[in-house]
Amino acid sequence: MRTLEVRLGARSYPILIGAGMLARADSYSHFSGRRVRVLTDASVAQHYLGAVLDALKLTPAQALVLPAGETQKTMASAERVLDWMLQEQLGRDAVLAALGGGVIGDLGGFCAAIYQRGIDFIQIPTTLLAQVDSSVGGKTGVNHARGKNMIGAFHQPRLVLADLDTLKTLPPRELRAGLAEVIKYGLLGDAQFFHWLEQHLDALLQLDAVRLAEAVEKCCAMKARIVGEDERESSSRALLNLGHTFAHAIETHTGYGDWLHGEAVAVGLCMAADLSSRLGALATVDAARVATLVQRAQLPTAVPQGMTPARFLELMRHDKKVQAGQLRLVLLESIGHAVLTAEFDAAKLNETLAHFCA
Amino acid sequence: MRTLEVRLGARSYPILIGAGMLARADSYSHFSGRRVRVLTDASVAQHYLGAVLDALKLTPAQALVLPAGETQKTMASAERVLDWMLQEQLGRDAVLAALGGGVIGDLGGFCAAIYQRGIDFIQIPTTLLAQVDSSVGGKTGVNHARGKNMIGAFHQPRLVLADLDTLKTLPPRELRAGLAEVIKYGLLGDAQFFHWLEQHLDALLQLDAVRLAEAVEKCCAMKARIVGEDERESSSRALLNLGHTFAHAIETHTGYGDWLHGEAVAVGLCMAADLSSRLGALATVDAARVATLVQRAQLPTAVPQGMTPARFLELMRHDKKVQAGQLRLVLLESIGHAVLTAEFDAAKLNETLAHFCA
Repeated sequence: MRTLEVRLGARSYPILIGAGMLARADSYSHFSGRRVRVLTDASVAQHYLGAVLDALKLTPAQALVLPAGETQKTMASAERVLDWMLQEQLGRDAVLAALGGGVIGDLGGFCAAIYQRGIDFIQIPTTLLAQVDSSVGGKTGVNHARGKNMIGAFHQPRLVLADLDTLKTLPPRELRAGLAEVIKYGLLGDAQFFHWLEQHLDALLQLDAVRLAEAVEKCCAMKARIVGEDERESSSRALLNLGHTFAHAIETHTGYGDWLHGEAVAVGLCMAADLSSRLGALATVDAARVATLVQRAQLPTAVPQGMTPARFLELMRHDKKVQAGQLRLVLLESIGHAVLTAEFDAAKLNETLAHFCA
Repeated sequence: MRTLEVRLGARSYPILIGAGMLARADSYSHFSGRRVRVLTDASVAQHYLGAVLDALKLTPAQALVLPAGETQKTMASAERVLDWMLQEQLGRDAVLAALGGGVIGDLGGFCAAIYQRGIDFIQIPTTLLAQVDSSVGGKTGVNHARGKNMIGAFHQPRLVLADLDTLKTLPPRELRAGLAEVIKYGLLGDAQFFHWLEQHLDALLQLDAVRLAEAVEKCCAMKARIVGEDERESSSRALLNLGHTFAHAIETHTGYGDWLHGEAVAVGLCMAADLSSRLGALATVDAARVATLVQRAQLPTAVPQGMTPARFLELMRHDKKVQAGQLRLVLLESIGHAVLTAEFDAAKLNETLAHFCA
């Protein structure tokens, strides 16, 4: 087992990474004596809910099982969870454990953030995407018809339990979606790690446990460091949104049903690299390396059919990074070095959009 | 004009108290160049919305006017406000101004807290209750059928503008409701101020501008100090809930429609004083002083007809101060000195409930 720490003063917390930990009672020892309830979804429940309940000495009636899928990440689901928390008579000292992927983590975290003005919660991420990205850093929220993650809160978990065993049962499509975020980390801040991914991508796709563990640790360490430096995304944390402005437009356009978040991020990374190269910041050969790695991960590199440049621009205007009405994008200066900027030639953005929407 | 400061490091903010300030452009100079939108309700709008819009150089289309009343403090209203904010394409650098009483302030603050994970907001309290209590300190939220303020967030405003002129148009019932919170401050932390209230209550009821200004300043100064010491209510801030556990039970029981919050607090203060005296902590003569002052303010001292001790206990179990399943109450040791405790004789609580429900 490996322990990382997200350093945020009184709100610091550990990320425990290892195999089999969600089933061990001592993983939860920090919360002993407190009322814990578990939120999960139907697909995750069939594999892991029993083990988590046993470790926490809870009964199935003390968990809420939602349907699976990104379409659940809504205010309506949040209200259902909050109603349940009130029915369970949870006090401010209760703890909510979110067992699942990014949807359950974001939704559960949001409900913990606004239940009685904030209670403690535990992230137990069971997908690669959630383990390397969404479970760490306290971004919680739900989607709105007008935009992804438009309603939410910063609310840090008290513990992240990344159980590597859960990746064994991960559907291949979910594994690949997680790899998009993994690639993102190499691109935005670590050229060596990007190179490592080029070497070991096949092993990761084949669920090589050692390589997966290395990737999860690497990404969590980067995320923990960035969040520790800039919890509220006033500067460096924004770089974690590499590819996400394009991705959120795709997800909003498709209504959160058909595309997995990581799949949209994959296209977004290609678009960000393409634009960076058109702007003369990123070498053409490096933009090609991005597209190649994304393709090798069997992730999409094309936008949804029928999506137009105008639609992209309309949806991107709602991006949370818009400031004083101006769109800001995370772009690449090289592999391993990203910057957030509002100073780019809009004509080049139009070229990128036209290219991908052709 | 008087300026007080709520000291919370990077989240510190001023409370400006004076006459006519909501109509002055320079009250908002800190936010110049940013997109500001105004949330208010229909009763407040007819008196003050025009002046606020003029000062901010906004049009009526840039305000959202909700129906008035505590029944609006719901998740459904919050969704309506959030939809409007998205329609207005507010970015993370936008500012929401909440113009109104406690309902608009709590609801607007909550929406600002969860819109794009938190944007800045301004409190412009137009009732005595909001000026002396709810607009300061960052407690935001909405009610739930199972309990008052059960859904919410801590989110500090960037500015509180307490315009004393607004009290001139305050309906007498709202004025009296505000006085309940004013009395609370004397009881929980300042015996001299309680004595001052005994002397000047009639002047306050007659809207004596000088006395009202003194009372608002006194209460805001106490609240600013307490919030600066204990933003998240881990200790001293809980004392501000004197009377509120009883009051919230009344409000939940009556469905948030018939009783004003301050009216429920008035009864709650009497009940807390009664229990404190039965427990031998507060002199009987001082409990009588509390009831007398509440009565002189023409506030209710009896619980809603038909409300039983069993119903009180059931609703009080949901109180946010419950810890490890145990009810904690703010009680009085003397006038001017309150304590939060779980250690009280439950039989005495039953006596108080029986007495008030008789």
